[in-house]
Amino acid sequence: MADAKAQKRQKFEGAYTKLREELLDYLRQEGMPDDVVNWFKRNIDYNVRGGKLNRGMSVVDSVEILKARTLDDDEYFKAALLGWCVEFLQAYFLISDDMMDQSVTRRGQPCYYRVEGVNLIAINDAYMIEGAIYYLLKKHFRAEPCYVYLLDVFHDTTFQTQIGQLIDMVTAPEDQVDLSKFSLAKHQKIVIFKTAYYSFYLPVALAMYMCGIPHSPPSSSPSSSSSATPPTDPYALAESILVPLGEYFQVQDDFLDFAAPPEVLGKVGTDIVDNKCSWCVNTALALTAHAPAQRRVLDESYGVKDRAAEARVKALYEELGIRERYAAYEEGAYARISALIETIPEGGMDVGAGEREGEGGVRLRREVFKAFLDKIYKRQK
Amino acid sequence: MADAKAQKRQKFEGAYTKLREELLDYLRQEGMPDDVVNWFKRNIDYNVRGGKLNRGMSVVDSVEILKARTLDDDEYFKAALLGWCVEFLQAYFLISDDMMDQSVTRRGQPCYYRVEGVNLIAINDAYMIEGAIYYLLKKHFRAEPCYVYLLDVFHDTTFQTQIGQLIDMVTAPEDQVDLSKFSLAKHQKIVIFKTAYYSFYLPVALAMYMCGIPHSPPSSSPSSSSSATPPTDPYALAESILVPLGEYFQVQDDFLDFAAPPEVLGKVGTDIVDNKCSWCVNTALALTAHAPAQRRVLDESYGVKDRAAEARVKALYEELGIRERYAAYEEGAYARISALIETIPEGGMDVGAGEREGEGGVRLRREVFKAFLDKIYKRQK
Repeated sequence: MADAKAQKRQKFEGAYTKLREELLDYLRQEGMPDDVVNWFKRNIDYNVRGGKLNRGMSVVDSVEILKARTLDDDEYFKAALLGWCVEFLQAYFLISDDMMDQSVTRRGQPCYYRVEGVNLIAINDAYMIEGAIYYLLKKHFRAEPCYVYLLDVFHDTTFQTQIGQLIDMVTAPEDQVDLSKFSLAKHQKIVIFKTAYYSFYLPVALAMYMCGIPHSPPSSSPSSSSSATPPTDPYALAESILVPLGEYFQVQDDFLDFAAPPEVLGKVGTDIVDNKCSWCVNTALALTAHAPAQRRVLDESYGVKDRAAEARVKALYEELGIRERYAAYEEGAYARISALIETIPEGGMDVGAGEREGEGGVRLRREVFKAFLDKIYKRQK
Repeated sequence: MADAKAQKRQKFEGAYTKLREELLDYLRQEGMPDDVVNWFKRNIDYNVRGGKLNRGMSVVDSVEILKARTLDDDEYFKAALLGWCVEFLQAYFLISDDMMDQSVTRRGQPCYYRVEGVNLIAINDAYMIEGAIYYLLKKHFRAEPCYVYLLDVFHDTTFQTQIGQLIDMVTAPEDQVDLSKFSLAKHQKIVIFKTAYYSFYLPVALAMYMCGIPHSPPSSSPSSSSSATPPTDPYALAESILVPLGEYFQVQDDFLDFAAPPEVLGKVGTDIVDNKCSWCVNTALALTAHAPAQRRVLDESYGVKDRAAEARVKALYEELGIRERYAAYEEGAYARISALIETIPEGGMDVGAGEREGEGGVRLRREVFKAFLDKIYKRQK
């Protein structure tokens, strides 16, 4: 089982090697000097590889589920390319996040801007990582009917993520603690924009476009801001499931930063010390709205670079029962998202997408979403 | 005359006001808090407005020349929108250029990253300025046949500009002078990639796409890396003129940084002190290839933060006759580019683009290119 997972990852990494070669070949064809080509190579190797690759590989998984069969070599490569574009997008964001947060390490190595000789050049390197996405999409998808949709969904989610980053920075600047700016509602906005769209909706939407699933024309019935009826457009339907899923994922991430043992999590949580607008502090703020003495602990000790202050906040979290609150949140989120998934018919939703003759055809299947939910539910790291 | 120019600028700025409102409305509709909306407003007002707007307004001018008539309100707004997107793209690059160069002022005010409370948040603000381009294009051009071409040309030139920035930074890091990395060939690569594509090719290509000019299918004859026959594809033809034009523009910019009186130029040139890979130093290097004593002046005094060192380099430039070299370069460039323009038939090139009934139709006209050349030739600032 662990072997199958490692093999899957290795195959996915094989596509990276090919895509990197294409990018470097382009630079060479344009007559770029060796030092420029090598700089770009180090840039992408350092920043794009070496993550968990969950987002990227989820594009391949989703295409396989939608088609309900194994992919041929060309299909695999194209799905993997889209997956790597998600990883490129993430790298573009992480480089700047680390600079803006003045973080020290990422994925067990120094943050890229801290590499000898890089520093602020990292900004243009991040730009180029984003630029590479559109080079690769054009090279491999320009002639496909889905091309313009792929571009749109990358643009849309990129802008959403940038907006999420802005709300986060305006709400929780590291050096200026003001908990009156925080709220669970603002936390929800931040996590949906900063994380959910690009980490969950984007990979699935890319897979759906690649499989030729069309948008359905906007319905004439007064539409679906009420949650009673699920959206009829397959992309709106996917979004209506994946955005809450991404929100749940980030709440869990916030909780684990506080609650998971560092030896399990693989890192030491720093959200309290760094004045992060975390689910935990927002829940604590809500719970202490009428308890001024407890609230004072937060005002005095949150975002303070001091281990004793951090310990006081953690003790308050325990006192307020944040663990139990989270457990209840998790059960609720799981039930709510499962119910959303079950609005999809059991054999999948007919989306009018063609497939090869004699095959079952592409259907929007529950399993696309279940795959995400199962990976997340009750994870410990 | 000055009045007409001011009016033209004012009308163009009117479109900005409308586009800004659309962007802010989008943020409000998505439920963003006021402090976030206001931050973004200050970001774009500070960075996108207030330049010379030559690049942006050249899109409108080009559309008018291609259509050979005045534009109706909708056409004007769309052409101006494309022009503002070029200005947004430029702002995205200038924010990061200033950070990477640690520049102090831009357009007579502090560089954006130096504004109180901004600093590294400027990175995400630059990201968002780029993100806004694709929001605006989608909002106004999604249903047009040219949409996907507009996206492609923005992506292509963005990547090219990023590559140009990288060659520049690898070749001429401010704190590590090594003139052996410099050459006129490398200078040419830098200016073409970093400046010519986005400043000259992009605005014209956008105007051509907006006017519905199609690409011609790639010709079967062994193609045109020889400069003997002009390209048959109108976009390749435009590029073959506008890239040398952009190169000429930047060489001139480099020359003026050294040679123009500051009271005419409106700023004090700093290329020598800042170790810039300028046309002047590359020409001086070529001229001193067999004159070790003169070359030593460059090695010892170029890129040194010291007024006496700068004065020694300037004296060497005078001694080497850089002014006369430039005058000869300018005449040569003007003649070469004029000849390229004259490969276009006098009444314009038939490009098979439809127009309103009873009108002359869109033709690719010499005047598109002449307008640029005339603005540049022998400019003093």
